[in-house]
Amino acid sequence: MGTIATLALPQIVSAAFANENIKKVELNKDDIILFQGDSITDWGRNYSATQPNSTNSLGSGYVLLTAGHLLLKYPEKNLHIYNKGISGNKVYQLADRWDADCLALKPNVLSIHIGVNDFWHTLTNGYTGTIDTYITDYHKLLDRTKQASPNVKLIICEPFALKGVKAVDDKWYPTFDLFRKAARDIATEYNATFVPLQSVFDKAVESAPAPYWNLDGVHPSVAGEALMAQAWMEAVG
Amino acid sequence: MGTIATLALPQIVSAAFANENIKKVELNKDDIILFQGDSITDWGRNYSATQPNSTNSLGSGYVLLTAGHLLLKYPEKNLHIYNKGISGNKVYQLADRWDADCLALKPNVLSIHIGVNDFWHTLTNGYTGTIDTYITDYHKLLDRTKQASPNVKLIICEPFALKGVKAVDDKWYPTFDLFRKAARDIATEYNATFVPLQSVFDKAVESAPAPYWNLDGVHPSVAGEALMAQAWMEAVG
Repeated sequence: MGTIATLALPQIVSAAFANENIKKVELNKDDIILFQGDSITDWGRNYSATQPNSTNSLGSGYVLLTAGHLLLKYPEKNLHIYNKGISGNKVYQLADRWDADCLALKPNVLSIHIGVNDFWHTLTNGYTGTIDTYITDYHKLLDRTKQASPNVKLIICEPFALKGVKAVDDKWYPTFDLFRKAARDIATEYNATFVPLQSVFDKAVESAPAPYWNLDGVHPSVAGEALMAQAWMEAVG
Repeated sequence: MGTIATLALPQIVSAAFANENIKKVELNKDDIILFQGDSITDWGRNYSATQPNSTNSLGSGYVLLTAGHLLLKYPEKNLHIYNKGISGNKVYQLADRWDADCLALKPNVLSIHIGVNDFWHTLTNGYTGTIDTYITDYHKLLDRTKQASPNVKLIICEPFALKGVKAVDDKWYPTFDLFRKAARDIATEYNATFVPLQSVFDKAVESAPAPYWNLDGVHPSVAGEALMAQAWMEAVG
């Protein structure tokens, strides 16, 4: 690992996954793949667009780039890819709309990326939830999901932040790290595939400065979106 | 080539390029890369956004997906990627805005994808330009470009259409094929890198039906955008 500084992509992703014991998700024909989360997932999608696999409904963030990879790699699988992320969401807000925006779609694969706002909004929006709120709410959401769809394949993406970039200052630490750890623990508890996005970005900043990958510490640049998509693709196959 | 029907991606792209003698473009540090063209290039970009490498300015089509690939693959190169495609454009309309939307940006790499409307609008919009208009206008545009920027590296993307999908009926042929051939000939004349997109889509429809790759015969689906991005990436390196 002494040559990390000169790692080219996609070795960054491989390096970040090297210490992970990733349970890869196998995709089947006609699978419905749902991406859920906050602004990072939402990324300008048109809330009125209901068709899968369309630019309008996928937005233009990591979900679009990941959908591009998936649809290109598996043309024979007839995948149906949806994005139902909504900017600003915390776990309890996913729960508020879970029947319509998750369960009704009957996903075979459900990818969730949530947790940044569950912490960030305690600093900026007067949100009073804690790490325990996050953990309790996340458990409830997944219990409800498993009850409705026992066979759904879960992918849990690590919440991440890029320290020192604009919005992300010392006040984030060490508390924010608890949210990352919680997401990882929950992935293990629910036998979900975990996508270690913080590790991926931590490796990436050894190849280019943090602002190359992230606009404000929270929201990825196009380079960061592409990195997320590549990391997500490590979870399937 | 007898196993084309079972080709997985990205072998489709390799197969399409197999008979091409592609002059690969080498990218340098701080390169300015400009994508020019019509709606396929434009794809919802915000005309007010002037920053390179941003989702707003790149749109959400093949340019965004290609930019993702480039920024992820070459983090050390500090690339500046612009999209100045405008929906509906034909070659003469590129010329009308070339000073501001091309020459002023001083691109090191200029990728042009133009020609579908130069034919299509003769069927739908009463446009009276011919194949000779296309060839003459394209020559003039490139002569002007070479005069202003003798060292610019040119990438010419083949205009393509997916026969039998909605807008693209028998009336397109054989005339539309002349535009494809003209773009290829012009690439040779100007020592440009040619991206054979029609060949790529022709291979792709052996893996999934044409509507999987294209919405109306002209505008790619997300799968088609991803395919274009992968094909474009074959032109560099």
